[in-house]
Amino acid sequence: MSEVVFFTPGPSKLYSGVREDLETCLRDGVLSQSHRGSAFKEGCARTKEKLRELFCVPEDYTVLFVGSGTEAMEVLVRNLSSRSTFHVCMGAFSRRFQEIAKATGRHTHEVSVEPGRGVPLDRVEVPDAELLCVTHNETSTGVELDLGGLASFRAKRPGALIAVDIVSSACTRVFPWSLAEAWFFSVQKACGLPAGLGVMILGPRALERAKFNASEESHVGYFRSLVRMDQKAQTHQTVETPNVLGIHLLGRVFERMIDGGGMAEITRSTREKMASLCRWAEAHPQLSLFVEDPKERSQTVLVLNLPKGSHGGDVRAILEGAGLVVGAGYGASSSSQIRIANFPAHTIAEHDRLRGELDRVLATN
Amino acid sequence: MSEVVFFTPGPSKLYSGVREDLETCLRDGVLSQSHRGSAFKEGCARTKEKLRELFCVPEDYTVLFVGSGTEAMEVLVRNLSSRSTFHVCMGAFSRRFQEIAKATGRHTHEVSVEPGRGVPLDRVEVPDAELLCVTHNETSTGVELDLGGLASFRAKRPGALIAVDIVSSACTRVFPWSLAEAWFFSVQKACGLPAGLGVMILGPRALERAKFNASEESHVGYFRSLVRMDQKAQTHQTVETPNVLGIHLLGRVFERMIDGGGMAEITRSTREKMASLCRWAEAHPQLSLFVEDPKERSQTVLVLNLPKGSHGGDVRAILEGAGLVVGAGYGASSSSQIRIANFPAHTIAEHDRLRGELDRVLATN
Repeated sequence: MSEVVFFTPGPSKLYSGVREDLETCLRDGVLSQSHRGSAFKEGCARTKEKLRELFCVPEDYTVLFVGSGTEAMEVLVRNLSSRSTFHVCMGAFSRRFQEIAKATGRHTHEVSVEPGRGVPLDRVEVPDAELLCVTHNETSTGVELDLGGLASFRAKRPGALIAVDIVSSACTRVFPWSLAEAWFFSVQKACGLPAGLGVMILGPRALERAKFNASEESHVGYFRSLVRMDQKAQTHQTVETPNVLGIHLLGRVFERMIDGGGMAEITRSTREKMASLCRWAEAHPQLSLFVEDPKERSQTVLVLNLPKGSHGGDVRAILEGAGLVVGAGYGASSSSQIRIANFPAHTIAEHDRLRGELDRVLATN
Repeated sequence: MSEVVFFTPGPSKLYSGVREDLETCLRDGVLSQSHRGSAFKEGCARTKEKLRELFCVPEDYTVLFVGSGTEAMEVLVRNLSSRSTFHVCMGAFSRRFQEIAKATGRHTHEVSVEPGRGVPLDRVEVPDAELLCVTHNETSTGVELDLGGLASFRAKRPGALIAVDIVSSACTRVFPWSLAEAWFFSVQKACGLPAGLGVMILGPRALERAKFNASEESHVGYFRSLVRMDQKAQTHQTVETPNVLGIHLLGRVFERMIDGGGMAEITRSTREKMASLCRWAEAHPQLSLFVEDPKERSQTVLVLNLPKGSHGGDVRAILEGAGLVVGAGYGASSSSQIRIANFPAHTIAEHDRLRGELDRVLATN
């Protein structure tokens, strides 16, 4: 049997070379490395440098590590707001951002659409809130937000800060970093790494606001105070003992991606692969695309409606028997939909294999 | 040259078999495993089961995962207190527990001793506070707290909860779990695993208090609310995407430890190895033990005073050249002391090799 391929929307297929990198880490003692020693600090600095190069991060933006995308949401809410947040809700993960803000005592505002639709950012009415929270790629529904509207969205509340969830779209394109103060992602999606590490990219206004809030008895806490995290990051350390291996592997993946042609090449191939998947799904006699508007479709997560009468769990089990692991539909759609990831690790040949197998499954079901 | 051996007090030497376990994880797709799928849930359940077996955790105590020991401190302070905490301070890490409580807005009380000394718990005056925070093994100074006094310490404030930091002593002995409501550790110390995972062991009163506090507008947050974490843990999941690999490897290490004779054997060999190290250091013409009272000496972290005139950085560099990595003294003692770990991964032969090399370094310096 061929090797099992994971098309799950994260954790997902490992990026090519991760196995070799792990072996090098074992050989070089990275898994035993002190997080206060020079070897770690050099590795951490290298990872941030490669990230800056690959992602084209502006000089005055700072890179900080957390444990997950979910953690990043809570850290940003606690540090960058003291009373109120606004949320553009398109599905379960943008909703989670709001739930987190509520759970930390913020008064939250929202605009929401039905699942499978996007939000035209330039037409949103933005209330008076300290932090505006936006999800670029809603992993639960496969909707991508058009960031073309971000500048005018921003202009409506110039005093507010903007945080953008790029959990499942980071590492597939360059973002307009300067149009928001905080961007965050996790590494088990498009970076093709094992889970357990999140990354935040923060602009100077975010750190200023964090400093201001810290002086205001905001009780932001200790180890995820952005002020303290930023201080430690100056010497390429973290407050806590971090996921040393994850930080190291991330730098290696970025190096491989840069060697492979950089972000321009990743963006090009990501779009090409997704366009091909969408053409196939549109022409399919039994499948349909959950996101109807082609302009709102994610480049990394394809959500397919299964034909009536077929059960998602059964379809996934048959595919898994053939060595192809796809994601369930999210939440209430777990039986009626499947989700297919299109990350840099995934090849056209693998998507072709999946398409062929899915055709067979549906034809005989 | 022989393989490099890490005697650093965590991250440290990997436990035997971790390399093979990593290879099995790669082969079985653990690094791509969905944290919502049955394979992860089974693996997570197995890790908790093995931990319970090896550690002899009472049935009504709950096991929850976080990212680090530092994170556990903050999670416990936020969930288990709303106004006040008390700290038994013996060094940098017990002090950190207090700093965290302050940073979350708690009014903190403390009792403290000079570095290198322990605190007789039964003789401590315990103020009226909601959470009493104790460090069993102070990694910065190599002091072990005598838990024999825990019962009478506890009896002084029966309404309070007790949290015990066992970050660097867990996995070397069985603790009197029922004498405290919260115990926590991280895996890069005595478990011999890569950093990036912490574990909390919580009694029923901790979860009751967390529930009570949650109903009180405590703004404990979302993803580290003990109530939400416990709900997710019922089905062997976590709120966020966790360190899937770390959780899996932890279960495997525990299996290996159980197969190797269980905790009784680990405790026996840990004590034997440390006794031998202490005898050598006591008889050494140039070295001395930082912790003078033998009853207060840690079983896992040996702190040695270097002879006047020798510089810790130089000593460590020469040892490292010989493939032996020891820890620096903590903070202000970084030049005058070294720290040597005695975790289950470390063998008598390795300690002997280190002793011989250290003798040579000091003789020629």
